[in-house]
Amino acid sequence: MNKKISAALISVFYKDGLEPVVRQLKEQGATIYSTGGTQKFIEDLGIDVIPVESLTTYPSILGGRVKTLHPSVFGGILGRRSNETDVREMQQYNIPTLDLVIVDLYPFEETLVQTKEEKLIIEKIDIGGPSMIRAAAKNFADVTVIASKDDYGKLVELLQTQSGEISLEQRKAFAAKAFKVVANYDVAINNYFNADEPLTVVGAGKETVLRYGENPHQTAVFYGDLNECFEQLHGKEISYNNLVDIDAAIELIKEFQSTTFAIIKHTNVCGIASREDVSDAWKHALAGDPESAFGGVLVCNREIDKATAEAINEIFFEVLLAPSYNDEALSILKTKKNRILLQLKNTVTTKNIYKNAVNGTLQQGKDAGNFDKWEEAGGRASDEREKEDLLFANLVCKHLKSNAIALVKNKQLVGKGCGQTSRIDALRHAVEKAKQFNFDLSGAVMASDAFFPFNDCVQLGHEAGITAFIQPGGSIRDKDSIEYCVANNLVMVMTGLRHFRH
Amino acid sequence: MNKKISAALISVFYKDGLEPVVRQLKEQGATIYSTGGTQKFIEDLGIDVIPVESLTTYPSILGGRVKTLHPSVFGGILGRRSNETDVREMQQYNIPTLDLVIVDLYPFEETLVQTKEEKLIIEKIDIGGPSMIRAAAKNFADVTVIASKDDYGKLVELLQTQSGEISLEQRKAFAAKAFKVVANYDVAINNYFNADEPLTVVGAGKETVLRYGENPHQTAVFYGDLNECFEQLHGKEISYNNLVDIDAAIELIKEFQSTTFAIIKHTNVCGIASREDVSDAWKHALAGDPESAFGGVLVCNREIDKATAEAINEIFFEVLLAPSYNDEALSILKTKKNRILLQLKNTVTTKNIYKNAVNGTLQQGKDAGNFDKWEEAGGRASDEREKEDLLFANLVCKHLKSNAIALVKNKQLVGKGCGQTSRIDALRHAVEKAKQFNFDLSGAVMASDAFFPFNDCVQLGHEAGITAFIQPGGSIRDKDSIEYCVANNLVMVMTGLRHFRH
Repeated sequence: MNKKISAALISVFYKDGLEPVVRQLKEQGATIYSTGGTQKFIEDLGIDVIPVESLTTYPSILGGRVKTLHPSVFGGILGRRSNETDVREMQQYNIPTLDLVIVDLYPFEETLVQTKEEKLIIEKIDIGGPSMIRAAAKNFADVTVIASKDDYGKLVELLQTQSGEISLEQRKAFAAKAFKVVANYDVAINNYFNADEPLTVVGAGKETVLRYGENPHQTAVFYGDLNECFEQLHGKEISYNNLVDIDAAIELIKEFQSTTFAIIKHTNVCGIASREDVSDAWKHALAGDPESAFGGVLVCNREIDKATAEAINEIFFEVLLAPSYNDEALSILKTKKNRILLQLKNTVTTKNIYKNAVNGTLQQGKDAGNFDKWEEAGGRASDEREKEDLLFANLVCKHLKSNAIALVKNKQLVGKGCGQTSRIDALRHAVEKAKQFNFDLSGAVMASDAFFPFNDCVQLGHEAGITAFIQPGGSIRDKDSIEYCVANNLVMVMTGLRHFRH
Repeated sequence: MNKKISAALISVFYKDGLEPVVRQLKEQGATIYSTGGTQKFIEDLGIDVIPVESLTTYPSILGGRVKTLHPSVFGGILGRRSNETDVREMQQYNIPTLDLVIVDLYPFEETLVQTKEEKLIIEKIDIGGPSMIRAAAKNFADVTVIASKDDYGKLVELLQTQSGEISLEQRKAFAAKAFKVVANYDVAINNYFNADEPLTVVGAGKETVLRYGENPHQTAVFYGDLNECFEQLHGKEISYNNLVDIDAAIELIKEFQSTTFAIIKHTNVCGIASREDVSDAWKHALAGDPESAFGGVLVCNREIDKATAEAINEIFFEVLLAPSYNDEALSILKTKKNRILLQLKNTVTTKNIYKNAVNGTLQQGKDAGNFDKWEEAGGRASDEREKEDLLFANLVCKHLKSNAIALVKNKQLVGKGCGQTSRIDALRHAVEKAKQFNFDLSGAVMASDAFFPFNDCVQLGHEAGITAFIQPGGSIRDKDSIEYCVANNLVMVMTGLRHFRH
């Protein structure tokens, strides 16, 4: 049923965009009630406005903390026009009928960006505003609620084209929007007070509609502000699959302090190397698997210089992330128009890992640790180079999909197997890849993301030339693998930490 | 700073657990204000209580819709005791100081379970309650807020041990809890009004703390009510990794109407078959890869009978999901105490896929489709058996991690490759697996989750005995693969739908 807007209550923090609404209401002869700054804004437009105080016969008190929280206001919003008792009571207590409520809340989240001072932040927790919005939305049968300045234009258009009336369907849609505004507002406040255990809301926050999801027939949205994390310097729109790989790239590169370049494909590291020099790091990362690098996501923890840019320029890649680029490098890389070039601003990502599962959500802490212990249980102790490579391999392996094996030599990934249901298959793939790209595995090290169920992995590794192994341990047959290492004078480090990542 | 509780406002929907609180407040000589049913409850305990109406000099109006929304109440909550002007205004307007606010909200979510009638549901949207909770929480510097009956016991304990006082730290903790209650309440209302685009809150809803996450050093929680989906008939506690696989199993089995058994390992299908009979389906699912089935998650879309139970009983598995079990089957399967036996009640899962990414959340629609078209572009048309197998293989392939290849013969998975960065590698693995378990690939079909970049895949498949291929198409070199099929009289179906799943 359409309802004529005859009386409106307006109380907004930001006044921009409000003028056309007020003019339209005047045009159609509606009574306007308002308070404080909004009242002054309307008066300055030369439009009649009745202060809410004259309704409540109460002034705004407590520094504005209590202005509208009064039965005359809430009765005017909540009274059911189709209920005889309600109508009678409204007359008895001189409660005016309010048909439209426009509220723009105190900007809580904006305040958090501007200040860290608790007193100022708390003052921006709006009490009256959400109460009015919720009351008006509850009574959508009679009342139109506008809870966001984004909807001013829509409201004016409807009033103009519908002779000052709003339909039931439209009122209900505005109510739905209003409850969304309030829910998001309360989640933001909750997350300020419960910063350690925030409510993560899927579907709230800054919304970026992506071209599509994992596949072209799936719709997709990113919720969050990527600009906090990186700046896009060049290239086409970031896709869903790009974002998944960018996430993997950031989580990976965080683990390395020395100059490191890595190549990510479908969230797996397919090339990575640490070197003194950036362009060397790139060259050796690429050499690990030049085939898989095609169309990959590249990430580096140092400035990209000219020499590196020239080398990278030769291959096809989707995304490059780096903390900075020198000018020459940037102009070289910008020569291909689709390439996405990102300047990494910070690597603070979501606190937890979460995803849908069955009819709810699974949440877990990130896999933050690397070692519970460093137990050398093999035939001999690791030497310095082996130790460095074992540390490197263990980190890389943690960022491969399970079951995973990483083969490393001189801080370069020279073979990997991942995403397998059998550990020995992952190792076979890793050795094959190393052979395919002509790596000599003599003296290389091997990391496994979970324990060796049998001694076949150390045996196959040894036969391929590997001299040192790192793995969590914990199999009932650890002894078999250890004995093999002892018998063949191989290094076996047990960390106590499994790194499944499915 | 500790604050003595001298005056309390109590307005609760459920009264259970309230008595000790009220008795403690009486004990310490606090004034109690209340309204409606809560007031009557306190009076019946023989304890003095002042009706809020006497404060507001207003009755409860509009069928109880407006009771507490009055400056005397909100001033009493929001007034800053340390602010001279506030204190003076409170005296001037005869506003009492309220030190404690106890509110238990109208049970909105509970109402949704009980009724579908919009009028009744809307009446359960509490307006005054959240307003008082939010006001009291905002003014935690002076006020203690209890927003959940879960905290009654805690409050009584604190008052008893702290001489009727609450500390600033405790008030702030109660405020944090209160904002969480309100945020969840508003999200629930939002989701009623915006059922098509609900706000999914990670960290809200029924919480099940899991033993650990993907790895023992990661904490994990499931949010949701698994009982809506299945009943656990037997076995140990469900783990994080179990839930991930159960999710994959349910999404997979939904796609099959005829009698089908499947085995899931790390979210990948490693065995699946459709047969007339359940025990045959099991036997042929297992035969596809008896090695990977070890420790897997099994799922079936028919009742488990005695013969099937006896066959399954021979292997080690983690979870079995089925719509029902006959008594004999159940007692056979229950002989191992750790096995998780689940009775599937319904397969309604989350509407969208979502997960954390970078500093926010990625959400996408589920991969719901199977075909955009059925274009037979090869050397000949598929025959009936091939067509059935192609349909089957295409479905299976959709549920494998990308890049994926599924080899199917007579509605049985006879080889799979998955989780690869190169398509030809996935195919090589699939052919190797088929050979390992002695399958004859002559006349088998092959599905690929994405297009063939070159004609090497159809060539290698053909050499292995495969006669029909199904894939989305869309490569700039589709022609090469098609020409190969034409030259060798092979079937090539193009669906137009890619099924990446990383």
